[in-house]
Amino acid sequence: MKLRKQVVVIGGGFGGLAVTRALAREAVQVTLVDRRNHHLFQPLLYQVAMAGLSPAEIAVPIRSVLRKQNNARVLLAEASRIDLAARQVVLREAPPLPYHYLVVATGSCTSYFGHEDWRQVAPGLKDIEDAVEIRRRVLLAFEAAEREPDPEARLRYLTFVVIGGGPTGVELAGAIAELASYVLARDFRAINPEDTRVLLLEGGARILNTFAPQLSDRTLRSLAGMGVEVRTDAKVTRIDREGIFLGNERIMAGTVLWAAGVAASPLPDGLNAPVDRAGRVLVERDCSLPSNPEVFCIGDAAAFFTENDTAPLPGVSPVAMQQGRFVARQIRRRIDARPSETFVYHDKGSMATIGRSRAVVEIGQVHLSGFIAWLVWLLVHIYYLIDFSNRVFVIISWAWSYLTYRRGARLITGRDRTGEGT
Amino acid sequence: MKLRKQVVVIGGGFGGLAVTRALAREAVQVTLVDRRNHHLFQPLLYQVAMAGLSPAEIAVPIRSVLRKQNNARVLLAEASRIDLAARQVVLREAPPLPYHYLVVATGSCTSYFGHEDWRQVAPGLKDIEDAVEIRRRVLLAFEAAEREPDPEARLRYLTFVVIGGGPTGVELAGAIAELASYVLARDFRAINPEDTRVLLLEGGARILNTFAPQLSDRTLRSLAGMGVEVRTDAKVTRIDREGIFLGNERIMAGTVLWAAGVAASPLPDGLNAPVDRAGRVLVERDCSLPSNPEVFCIGDAAAFFTENDTAPLPGVSPVAMQQGRFVARQIRRRIDARPSETFVYHDKGSMATIGRSRAVVEIGQVHLSGFIAWLVWLLVHIYYLIDFSNRVFVIISWAWSYLTYRRGARLITGRDRTGEGT
Repeated sequence: MKLRKQVVVIGGGFGGLAVTRALAREAVQVTLVDRRNHHLFQPLLYQVAMAGLSPAEIAVPIRSVLRKQNNARVLLAEASRIDLAARQVVLREAPPLPYHYLVVATGSCTSYFGHEDWRQVAPGLKDIEDAVEIRRRVLLAFEAAEREPDPEARLRYLTFVVIGGGPTGVELAGAIAELASYVLARDFRAINPEDTRVLLLEGGARILNTFAPQLSDRTLRSLAGMGVEVRTDAKVTRIDREGIFLGNERIMAGTVLWAAGVAASPLPDGLNAPVDRAGRVLVERDCSLPSNPEVFCIGDAAAFFTENDTAPLPGVSPVAMQQGRFVARQIRRRIDARPSETFVYHDKGSMATIGRSRAVVEIGQVHLSGFIAWLVWLLVHIYYLIDFSNRVFVIISWAWSYLTYRRGARLITGRDRTGEGT
Repeated sequence: MKLRKQVVVIGGGFGGLAVTRALAREAVQVTLVDRRNHHLFQPLLYQVAMAGLSPAEIAVPIRSVLRKQNNARVLLAEASRIDLAARQVVLREAPPLPYHYLVVATGSCTSYFGHEDWRQVAPGLKDIEDAVEIRRRVLLAFEAAEREPDPEARLRYLTFVVIGGGPTGVELAGAIAELASYVLARDFRAINPEDTRVLLLEGGARILNTFAPQLSDRTLRSLAGMGVEVRTDAKVTRIDREGIFLGNERIMAGTVLWAAGVAASPLPDGLNAPVDRAGRVLVERDCSLPSNPEVFCIGDAAAFFTENDTAPLPGVSPVAMQQGRFVARQIRRRIDARPSETFVYHDKGSMATIGRSRAVVEIGQVHLSGFIAWLVWLLVHIYYLIDFSNRVFVIISWAWSYLTYRRGARLITGRDRTGEGT
């Protein structure tokens, strides 16, 4: 009997799941290791942060996704070290896992560009805990304003600053403006939602700078129409509990959210690979490590340069999924002793939602905005929600929110529930 | 212009909401104060603990419930002290609230009968955070078992002890057994769900001792049929990280849950009222304080003795709701200078669910069990879910779980997500 090749995949995000599933019919044994029990549909994470969806609606146990794939098993564990020489992954909670092929798909995390002290005062949005924390802070700000007798302090509570004008920042800023003007408007007695101030700060020259300039403009106008103040070339120099500084300009704000930067999640020790400034592994054209062709790195953990390109592929889910399927094919080819191929990314376009019935979509030369773009955005996101049941729930949640202007998950949980002192 | 009477209600549970809503058409100003922003449908909390429902499906913002009641406002704040002489409620986060009438509806919390050290190792089930913590522990136990090579340690992870044979204990024990045999069965590779051991321990002579003995018997048989070991007259003498002791008998268990006792939540300082052993205020026949007729106490915070009864009314939501409506009427009578009435509880029966298609219902002389009782239980619970949208979501969640044997909210969240060391 031939010994089955062992494939270990670290990370159950879009990339890790794609490679695992694409190996379903191969004569290999796949072990997927993740520190979390769930795969997260990150594109909708801001909806959890804005109380529109429940965490479970955008997360599905990795075990459930792979329950029918007999050659795959799932371990909830943290890969603390990779022993390249012995070809095994050392786990914090279980015996080491030997591998013939290893796929590192550990994703990305929020980066504060060295300002680690900003993490406490300006949370980012990368996982469920982040989203629930942002939800807690945003909802608490309105509660604190409601019970605040001092008008100045009240205005501070009603000021929300979102740092970073990429898709996540645009989504958050738009969603806070909507929350204030539609969802919460009728629920409060002492505060006037018109007093809510939402600022979106972008350090560069325009928001959504990966999109065509005309879509940046349309987004800017949409946001302005929703009452969001957008400032470009706005470099935040300090963040504290009272608000932020833009150089000498002080902006008082009760809530500051960070959507300005990501970096690769810390890699397991021992990987010993060259990385770029954002901590991403500089991979070969077949997504493998220069020193170790049996080790692959994909998705947000990798910096993949297409020939003649000066920037690596963007950290978006289509890249991770396509690389996952590609690496599965390379593993098959290696087993068959065939040569490696070169990964080619098929860019199917990008999109960002701004708010109720407003989005921008760019597919090659096609630029869409407004309601039609929002419909495209909606359909694509629902289509890609991995688990069918979740899809049904999300559709119902959305339909309900859309029709009633209400939000189904306005829960403040955690230890500090009244926000005393925030 | 006549000054409106100020009514302050502390607590947005079943009792507090009932009194507030019943005052909707009175010429009073009601302020509802709660430490949480949400009303919790506690009867379904065990479903959150068992990953069947999302927290937001059984919780609704108190503000939303009262958004259309113009004479009511909601404050997210903690009532730290009651100044009976000055007739005001001192809040931790906002200026004091003066009142003409005060309703204390602060509910109950888990009691460990003096064994405070058990709280860490055997969580109770009273709020969303408890439910999420129990969900985390139960799901982590299976994950730890899956990666555990030692068979003895594995068995310990797969042993669940539920302490307390009341409705909550029965629900939890039944739900864990179902989770193991149906929901998780196909998701694991290394463990066999048949190895899961669920023990339900009751200190008294029978489980569900507030029900008729024949219903206790039927419940016992149902649980046994589901694989739950029920032990009565089982007094837990020690709980630690390895399991429990029943006198000299050691039972190794990875997860211990506490459903054995509740007490009134700590009352605000200064209330200065006589309380019983469980910390409940011994109220007058009109639910007011003996010393202060303008202060009422209802629901789980109160010990109400019907004439000739030796035990106070049970801590269930119908008592709280009926007392809420009753107290609203008494406030109206006081304003009209009419004499107080005596509260009379109308017992509409009690019910407990055991598992999929199994429940017990007792309505006067009518005793139901099995599928028909489960249908009654289902309809009553869906009917009483306060917020319409939640009702729709819960029905869909349930229908989906029922038909597919899956659970929609199998999320492990919080800091310790891999359960290292548990």
